Amino acid sequence: MVNVLFSALSKRWAEYEAPLRAALTKAGLDARLATEFAPEEVDYIVYAPNGPVSDFAPFTKLKAVLSLWAGVETMVDNPTLTVPLCRMVDHGLTESMVEWVTGHVLRYHLGIDQNILGQDGVWRAGTVAPLARDRKVCVLGLGALGAACAQALAQLNFDVHGWARGPKDVDGVTCHHGADGLADALRDATMVALLLPDTPATENVLNAEGMALMKRGGFVVNPGRGPLVDDTALIAALDSGQLAHATLDVFRIEPLPAGHVFWSHPKVTVTPHIAAETKATTASDVIAENIRRGEAGEPFIHIVDRAAGY
Amino acid sequence: MVNVLFSALSKRWAEYEAPLRAALTKAGLDARLATEFAPEEVDYIVYAPNGPVSDFAPFTKLKAVLSLWAGVETMVDNPTLTVPLCRMVDHGLTESMVEWVTGHVLRYHLGIDQNILGQDGVWRAGTVAPLARDRKVCVLGLGALGAACAQALAQLNFDVHGWARGPKDVDGVTCHHGADGLADALRDATMVALLLPDTPATENVLNAEGMALMKRGGFVVNPGRGPLVDDTALIAALDSGQLAHATLDVFRIEPLPAGHVFWSHPKVTVTPHIAAETKATTASDVIAENIRRGEAGEPFIHIVDRAAGY
Repeated sequence: MVNVLFSALSKRWAEYEAPLRAALTKAGLDARLATEFAPEEVDYIVYAPNGPVSDFAPFTKLKAVLSLWAGVETMVDNPTLTVPLCRMVDHGLTESMVEWVTGHVLRYHLGIDQNILGQDGVWRAGTVAPLARDRKVCVLGLGALGAACAQALAQLNFDVHGWARGPKDVDGVTCHHGADGLADALRDATMVALLLPDTPATENVLNAEGMALMKRGGFVVNPGRGPLVDDTALIAALDSGQLAHATLDVFRIEPLPAGHVFWSHPKVTVTPHIAAETKATTASDVIAENIRRGEAGEPFIHIVDRAAGY
Repeated sequence: MVNVLFSALSKRWAEYEAPLRAALTKAGLDARLATEFAPEEVDYIVYAPNGPVSDFAPFTKLKAVLSLWAGVETMVDNPTLTVPLCRMVDHGLTESMVEWVTGHVLRYHLGIDQNILGQDGVWRAGTVAPLARDRKVCVLGLGALGAACAQALAQLNFDVHGWARGPKDVDGVTCHHGADGLADALRDATMVALLLPDTPATENVLNAEGMALMKRGGFVVNPGRGPLVDDTALIAALDSGQLAHATLDVFRIEPLPAGHVFWSHPKVTVTPHIAAETKATTASDVIAENIRRGEAGEPFIHIVDRAAGY
């Protein structure tokens, strides 16, 4: 008998209880799943940091913490979390992210905002967009999400350049890495999409210098994490015309405060962290698989490197 | 020596002269290319119907008419055109069309209009789009353009159903055909994209009946030809809420007249026939290849079936 504590917002429990029970059964596990246990009885915690648990010390026989979230930056520094921590890598989340990034890159590529906002009864002929193959798109981050987005854009013939901390090989994508590689990835890019984890090393990875390397009149799409972009530099680049527009789905403070300049800036689209979310059905399979592995003595999947921060 | 008459708008000549000369040379042809010849000397006409030639009778040794346009509905009924007529099938045009259709389908899928138009400083959480795999998209027309669009949408995991006059086989796409197949293709579709030729058989192919089969709150994208959609039925379906929005790039009369209801309807985006256009460099290669074939006695490519109308 395995005891699995579900510790997240109560609305998540409503969403996850049935699919998670089904996934545990399907994985052949004899598991008890609940939102409350005596801490010393818990084997695994299915976890979101906005749920009730923040001190893992009382969970004396805990084997692993299985995050419901892809981004684990608010968990890695918890000194009481000493057992393996696994990130959520959910194909439903990956697909959502690919759809969102591809949709917003095409929106900018095709000039859809002007179509929507500029309909004044005047027929303006001759404004066909250039071909995607003649536009450089830069994807910062080539993990599960970044690589999938980069590949989808490459399949649409965009000239896709990706960047990661270390060397990567992604089909159809020109991959760069390290500090020098960042400049090569950004240089002359018309669009940049940010899909890096939030770590001390990635803070302000897109700064004034990087924005200046992009093609004038370029676009920024950030569905990754708020701190990846230097907000002050972004506003300056939009105001100077170096950048034409930005769509931001993530922010240093969420919800984005009501008076924030991003809400009112004419060259910024704010979306409320909706690019992608973990889907209960597909995520439950990932969680059950990790519990099965733990019980079988097999290595966990999507385990977090606590030093790297993701 | 082959005499090639270029008969189109003079701005097209400015665009095509250099790439077409280069393509003819590359194809190994000893050709004279000009915008004027004595008619009886002309071997081939590179043609757009808005150029100077409308009577082909004086061109007594003409071997073929090579259209610069993909849509040939204004050429097939010309009784003086008795030599082979070839449509333009240009990979640059195909790529543009794929980008445009994919961009607008994703725009609707993700609800990007609400993001752009509804930015009022209020953070509305929890509105992640469903997965593309849970949305049916119908592509009417599975020729070069329709098949390419359907495949691109299938690669993004949409549940893509295509329809054509006769049976087709397109990778990743559920193909329907004939009158019965049309209803199956449209039933429960959230988005419909029209990429059929304009023929008597395709007029109003999307009518009130077809719109009623779609999922309530659906979307129409028409980058094909204006007469494919029953305009009156479309307005009625938008007004009743059966359809949520339409993006129309083509119209029965172009430019769309200033007072037309489409310009002012809150649920219609009008774009000025910009989804795709023939690109001079890639199109010149197609034209030169057909002249090479004609001179070598090989069959032309992309030859129009005058009875079918495309």
